[in-house]
Amino acid sequence: MKLGIVIFPSKNLQDQANSFRKRYDPNYSLIPPHITLKAGFEATEEQIKQFTDVLNEISSHFEPFQIATRKFSSFKPVNNVIYFKIEESNMLNELQFEINKRIESEGTEYAFVPHITIGQQLSNDEHSDVYGSLRMNQFNYEETIDRFHLLYQLENGSWTVYETFRLGKEK
Amino acid sequence: MKLGIVIFPSKNLQDQANSFRKRYDPNYSLIPPHITLKAGFEATEEQIKQFTDVLNEISSHFEPFQIATRKFSSFKPVNNVIYFKIEESNMLNELQFEINKRIESEGTEYAFVPHITIGQQLSNDEHSDVYGSLRMNQFNYEETIDRFHLLYQLENGSWTVYETFRLGKEK
Repeated sequence: MKLGIVIFPSKNLQDQANSFRKRYDPNYSLIPPHITLKAGFEATEEQIKQFTDVLNEISSHFEPFQIATRKFSSFKPVNNVIYFKIEESNMLNELQFEINKRIESEGTEYAFVPHITIGQQLSNDEHSDVYGSLRMNQFNYEETIDRFHLLYQLENGSWTVYETFRLGKEK
Repeated sequence: MKLGIVIFPSKNLQDQANSFRKRYDPNYSLIPPHITLKAGFEATEEQIKQFTDVLNEISSHFEPFQIATRKFSSFKPVNNVIYFKIEESNMLNELQFEINKRIESEGTEYAFVPHITIGQQLSNDEHSDVYGSLRMNQFNYEETIDRFHLLYQLENGSWTVYETFRLGKEK
């Protein structure tokens, strides 16, 4: 079974992201807008339960924290992906680091660039057009992140939430 | 904000349901296959936090329980909805009753008929064709339910999980 670990931002930010994803992201209907903490990785049914314990423990050591996004950015030339760039956040970095340290899996490790994808699998021309028209926009979304989620992927490619982990939750 | 409370069955049962939903359910891409415990209802941001406390308390009073589905059924003539019928379960009934007693909202109250929708908004002819070919099928899925989820709806009609509640979770 394929698992993933993500943060869902507020409804408002998800709605904003979806207004772009609808046109530019082929994964639009497979998962709500999210910040990936750990990209898809294979695991067995037994491992899920272990991971749940690990993630519960991690979440109890973190307090809710603020995130902000103020501009679009792109992974081009590595990937034709356009996204809401999440401003540098030590807490977010530490949470991502801790999760990936404690839950190991195979796969390429990219540096962690926190983001909410709004377009992907764009042709070079599409990417130029869309990113060219978006990149000068500025906005200012700030919000508190107080939870993250463990998800699994269904056969049709969509994702279902297995469990929610609340940051700093009293045990 | 519109909220809903559901159970997601196992990945296997979700995959089975999706193999039908893909063709017969216009909500296919908006939410994974689910058993509705409380249908969509309006709530404020403040209420969500209250509901979370209430649902946490409820979940602690329930132990995981078994469900089974062995046949298709239909809500026709009330609605042209075809579904996996969930066999009678006292625990499931009690959980649904408790949630709806403690979290009140406006709206028509149907009797609780636990089910996993696999087709809806079918024309009468479609309904006859599809249900006619499915109704004689028998199968036997049994599984343990150990959690339920509070969801909210985005502007595009899709649903995001707000929080997971584990049954009988030690506090």
